Amino acid sequence: MKKRNRMWQRLLIMLVATLFLAVFGVRASFAQGDVTTPTMDDITALRIGIDTSWVLLTGFLVFFMQLGFAILETGMIRQKSAVNALIENFLEAGIGAIVWWVVGFGIAFGADNGSGLFGTTLFAPGIELADTIFYGNISVLTMFFFQFAFAATASTITTGAMAERTDFVGHLVYTVIIVGLIYPVVVHWVWGGGWLFQQGFFDFAGSNVVHTVGGVIAIVGAFILGPRKGKVWGKAIPPHNLGLALTGTMILWFGWYGFNPGSTLGAVGVTGTIGIVILNTTLGAAAGTLASLFFQFFRSGKWDLTATLNGSLAGLVAVTGGCAFISPLAAIIIGIVGGILLLLWGDLLERIKVDDAVGASSVHLACGVWGIIAIGLFAEPSLTPFAANVKSGLGGLLIPGGGADILITQVIGSLATIAWTGVTAAIMFGALKAVGRLRVHAEGEDFIDDYEHGQSVWPDILPLPDAVEHKTASAKNTAPAMGD
Amino acid sequence: MKKRNRMWQRLLIMLVATLFLAVFGVRASFAQGDVTTPTMDDITALRIGIDTSWVLLTGFLVFFMQLGFAILETGMIRQKSAVNALIENFLEAGIGAIVWWVVGFGIAFGADNGSGLFGTTLFAPGIELADTIFYGNISVLTMFFFQFAFAATASTITTGAMAERTDFVGHLVYTVIIVGLIYPVVVHWVWGGGWLFQQGFFDFAGSNVVHTVGGVIAIVGAFILGPRKGKVWGKAIPPHNLGLALTGTMILWFGWYGFNPGSTLGAVGVTGTIGIVILNTTLGAAAGTLASLFFQFFRSGKWDLTATLNGSLAGLVAVTGGCAFISPLAAIIIGIVGGILLLLWGDLLERIKVDDAVGASSVHLACGVWGIIAIGLFAEPSLTPFAANVKSGLGGLLIPGGGADILITQVIGSLATIAWTGVTAAIMFGALKAVGRLRVHAEGEDFIDDYEHGQSVWPDILPLPDAVEHKTASAKNTAPAMGD
Amino acid sequence: MKKRNRMWQRLLIMLVATLFLAVFGVRASFAQGDVTTPTMDDITALRIGIDTSWVLLTGFLVFFMQLGFAILETGMIRQKSAVNALIENFLEAGIGAIVWWVVGFGIAFGADNGSGLFGTTLFAPGIELADTIFYGNISVLTMFFFQFAFAATASTITTGAMAERTDFVGHLVYTVIIVGLIYPVVVHWVWGGGWLFQQGFFDFAGSNVVHTVGGVIAIVGAFILGPRKGKVWGKAIPPHNLGLALTGTMILWFGWYGFNPGSTLGAVGVTGTIGIVILNTTLGAAAGTLASLFFQFFRSGKWDLTATLNGSLAGLVAVTGGCAFISPLAAIIIGIVGGILLLLWGDLLERIKVDDAVGASSVHLACGVWGIIAIGLFAEPSLTPFAANVKSGLGGLLIPGGGADILITQVIGSLATIAWTGVTAAIMFGALKAVGRLRVHAEGEDFIDDYEHGQSVWPDILPLPDAVEHKTASAKNTAPAMGD
Repeated sequence: MKKRNRMWQRLLIMLVATLFLAVFGVRASFAQGDVTTPTMDDITALRIGIDTSWVLLTGFLVFFMQLGFAILETGMIRQKSAVNALIENFLEAGIGAIVWWVVGFGIAFGADNGSGLFGTTLFAPGIELADTIFYGNISVLTMFFFQFAFAATASTITTGAMAERTDFVGHLVYTVIIVGLIYPVVVHWVWGGGWLFQQGFFDFAGSNVVHTVGGVIAIVGAFILGPRKGKVWGKAIPPHNLGLALTGTMILWFGWYGFNPGSTLGAVGVTGTIGIVILNTTLGAAAGTLASLFFQFFRSGKWDLTATLNGSLAGLVAVTGGCAFISPLAAIIIGIVGGILLLLWGDLLERIKVDDAVGASSVHLACGVWGIIAIGLFAEPSLTPFAANVKSGLGGLLIPGGGADILITQVIGSLATIAWTGVTAAIMFGALKAVGRLRVHAEGEDFIDDYEHGQSVWPDILPLPDAVEHKTASAKNTAPAMGD
Repeated sequence: MKKRNRMWQRLLIMLVATLFLAVFGVRASFAQGDVTTPTMDDITALRIGIDTSWVLLTGFLVFFMQLGFAILETGMIRQKSAVNALIENFLEAGIGAIVWWVVGFGIAFGADNGSGLFGTTLFAPGIELADTIFYGNISVLTMFFFQFAFAATASTITTGAMAERTDFVGHLVYTVIIVGLIYPVVVHWVWGGGWLFQQGFFDFAGSNVVHTVGGVIAIVGAFILGPRKGKVWGKAIPPHNLGLALTGTMILWFGWYGFNPGSTLGAVGVTGTIGIVILNTTLGAAAGTLASLFFQFFRSGKWDLTATLNGSLAGLVAVTGGCAFISPLAAIIIGIVGGILLLLWGDLLERIKVDDAVGASSVHLACGVWGIIAIGLFAEPSLTPFAANVKSGLGGLLIPGGGADILITQVIGSLATIAWTGVTAAIMFGALKAVGRLRVHAEGEDFIDDYEHGQSVWPDILPLPDAVEHKTASAKNTAPAMGD
Repeated sequence: MKKRNRMWQRLLIMLVATLFLAVFGVRASFAQGDVTTPTMDDITALRIGIDTSWVLLTGFLVFFMQLGFAILETGMIRQKSAVNALIENFLEAGIGAIVWWVVGFGIAFGADNGSGLFGTTLFAPGIELADTIFYGNISVLTMFFFQFAFAATASTITTGAMAERTDFVGHLVYTVIIVGLIYPVVVHWVWGGGWLFQQGFFDFAGSNVVHTVGGVIAIVGAFILGPRKGKVWGKAIPPHNLGLALTGTMILWFGWYGFNPGSTLGAVGVTGTIGIVILNTTLGAAAGTLASLFFQFFRSGKWDLTATLNGSLAGLVAVTGGCAFISPLAAIIIGIVGGILLLLWGDLLERIKVDDAVGASSVHLACGVWGIIAIGLFAEPSLTPFAANVKSGLGGLLIPGGGADILITQVIGSLATIAWTGVTAAIMFGALKAVGRLRVHAEGEDFIDDYEHGQSVWPDILPLPDAVEHKTASAKNTAPAMGD
């Protein structure tokens, strides 16, 4: 009897509180409970606000990386192909957005009916999904944007390796296929609940999903495409604008603070992980920078800016997959190995005669794979539970209390990704070659900017004499150059 | 008696809890209520924190657009006027801040005593308003900064159309008048609770308020100013630095993720709208990009970077007004139309002989007006309530369940804005012309950088021969150029 | 008996609630209390999320300032030394991260056993500190990153003054010493609870800690190093790329919106202060910009872009120390004085024959000290409590109700900082000079980019004739330049 009595009291209090709310008009959508006692709905509304803000603001930084890629690539190649590089990179965002919305996002994050291979729902997500929670406290549309920024990143990597000689229509076609098919399938495997996730594969922010995929397509493309006209093996074609190259690289490093920390997909309750991610991202980048600086000095006697810039990216790519699961010391080791690997891979490319114009595969493939393997070596048992997969709580081979379990899955996942990406990329580029749309028409290759775009990147500037002939030819509306 | 007994128990618990807090040091200033039961004050404090963070961080991105405008314009014009373009754009921020603080913000957001025309309070807001809530959960000073970034954007649009030939003092004067009078009046009409808001006019983030206003002033200025010396009608003067132009454009796209999503003026409880805004912003930009790319290719046979860059901005400007009220499909349509309109407007300018140096009116006026009209066509009845105006819940003409109501008001609002801005701009530029302060002195127009600023943007670089004469003339402290 | 009965009831309810949670899967880590009634733990979790997001996102902006410094400096110097400037600035981030992690952060923020001089804990902070609260609601690792971004800023200031002639190994060494010793000691004094904090010294975001320190090292370095070869006293060497210089400056202004507002180290409960900080930062920058613009026009009759860009930085540096403690009018006065001081200091440098290549000491030392002194003049009694030091509630000399108390401490703190930094910098640079590692080898000074780095920033571009000889010499793999 006592108990029932108290229950009545409670109901009465709730009734009065509701009336009070209705009369005094505290925003009903927010304060659903009581004037002085907030409910869990209030807390959830705040949590959605915080987590959404975090994911979107970091997503904006990831989007900004498009500019970094565009001008890093442009700075690293020859002036005569700069317009071509600029427009190709710019279009990754435009084409990427449409293709990712129509089909890519659904393949990556749609339900897969248990196949674990690719999603078949969530195509062209609309306004009806605006408040539908996708993961944690973020909505489908929030996830769409964050992942769009990643997708654009993945596809833009390719253009760097194939710069200065790709047919423009061929570029449009391969961008659609990468963003619409090749890339999202791997996303589904790892981040969309697919078979690799189920195996306990670790890839926090994309050493495999973004960088290995981009790097494999890049090297396959550069190989099938063949070298640039005038390429001399064993001797790098020097960058034409190191100001642009540095600016692009620092924008990428800045954007990486969106890429990695944002991959927690929320902020509330995971600030510890975010702190670790940022520390490791910073140290990995720094270690890669210094490793490349000193290793290149050791080899050439020069403090080489190009190597140093790429070294920071090597460290960042390598640490991206594991940054939530490793200690700072491991991040430094991973960065150092990445920075050296970068330069050795560059030597290898010259030897196997693949003309990767900006070293895209050195940065993204070599260091991407290294970063994924390194998780198998350095994962901390106290940190792996964040991944919430079947290997949560296990550690890497070189860590006390660890083992080979993670390493084996990492190798399998990396190989499977390379196989899928390599085969589909080869088919795609082979088909483009077969229809004559892979390489720019021979008559246009010497001055691709004028041939494809009718433009010159700095038309008012007089180039050095060896470039004058082309410039004169393409600058149709100017007086004859001095050589005449 | 039972009841009193329980009351004593409660007091005891609270006492112990307080002691516990005092001893174990949970911050007293925060936990104002009870150890286990937070109050709505706690919730409100958090909400203010989240909403303020969102508005300020997106506002920083909007501020960053100043750099985008500066280097896009500089890249799009001739090298010989680059310093003039750089300093003019840079000063929009400096002059804008002071003028907006002293007078603009008050006209835009002050109380208007029911006139609906302009505000007369909130001039020079000070530290006493730091915690005064202005709207939702954001303070007067937070609103001040966010709106300052918008004001700087509006005024900087003008410089692009009038580049390479405007008197520098004239530029200083017109900037003050735009930021202090012309622009804030329209802001008041639409966002400050003025007569257009009362009519149920929709402009989420500024297709009308920012872009139509900026675009009208730009075209009126370019018309009264007359063409650049050497301008040949029907033939565009080519951009002198496409690297700068692309960098500027991508910074603008990046900044637009502040411009549009931040215009919710909060994050808690509106994440659904934010998701829609970001999706539509992205798709509108992408559609504009691709529409311009293909339309220009269709016309010229070249994949033109300049058109493509401006196409993204055309899509962004057009989608800005409606992005919170439309479906993604409508965003794509709006972007496509914007991208084509941009190029047709450019043709029109050549035919009516207005030399808009960077196509500012093509991007901001044509696409701004189109974006405002498009809301009347595509507004979704389920989304218009977000505007909280008298037309909330109505839909656009082409939407099932919609009608012409919104469209009519949109047309009225757009015409009223064009009329006010056009007339005041004409008076302003006419007066400057009358006192000889609109166009740079004739003797300085051929080398405005040296004449007004005593500087050259890249003094160490040798330009093509047709530009040598000027360069030699202005580079006073260097050896004679090779032509001698 | 009744009491025990109720205790059992409570335990039962908790048990049921726990089971409910476990079964229905509300994240256990979050909802620690009750389903309908949130606890203060929920509030704290949200607060940590908000404050951490704010500090990290603003910290990312501060990190981005590294790019601003890099390209501002590069644009301001001669083209022939651009690669050297780019790589030196880039390495501040890489070297800074490692050194700050290993030793700098611990000296700055570790416990000091009451000495008040330098910390001796927190070296190489690891994953075990991820959730340890350092201050307010932010963790040790969050603080680590935010302060790393500041440390990199401080050390990068130096390179500008010493540009075009410093030995590269000497640069590596001095960067390590600045980030690892000179800078963190001053941080400890002011922000790490050291002796200056205890005296009630005010420096909100670093006019003293970052800018005075950086400026003193810069001028001492430039003095000991001697002028650039070819430097003519009384005549500035013109910037070689004003596009880069403007881009760098606007990135710095943008990044300052991280630098100052983020220095609240949280958002919840301090949005009022944040609003004041942003308003004052904006007005200070604007006032500095306009002061330099007009003062330089008054002196030279030209609207000088270089002066205007540096003027904005002068205003920003000066307002940084006091922006949380002053009124907007004071911010404008501080900015104006800063903008004029900048130019007068530049004249002084020419007269005392110190070749500060980019005016680093004009911006950071002169205006940094002015900003610290200005707090003693303009601090508002209602705002100083935010600093939570022994002088909280006092006001500046020129403010009604204020006095000389603050001013005296400000002068003492500024002098102590100059003394410590000046002496250690002199020893450091003196030692480097003694071992022949301060100035680049004489044979390399005329073409430092080729000598140290084997690279040229824009190798395809033909420079003006007076620079051709060097270019030809360094461009080993190109055809002979036109002079031949």
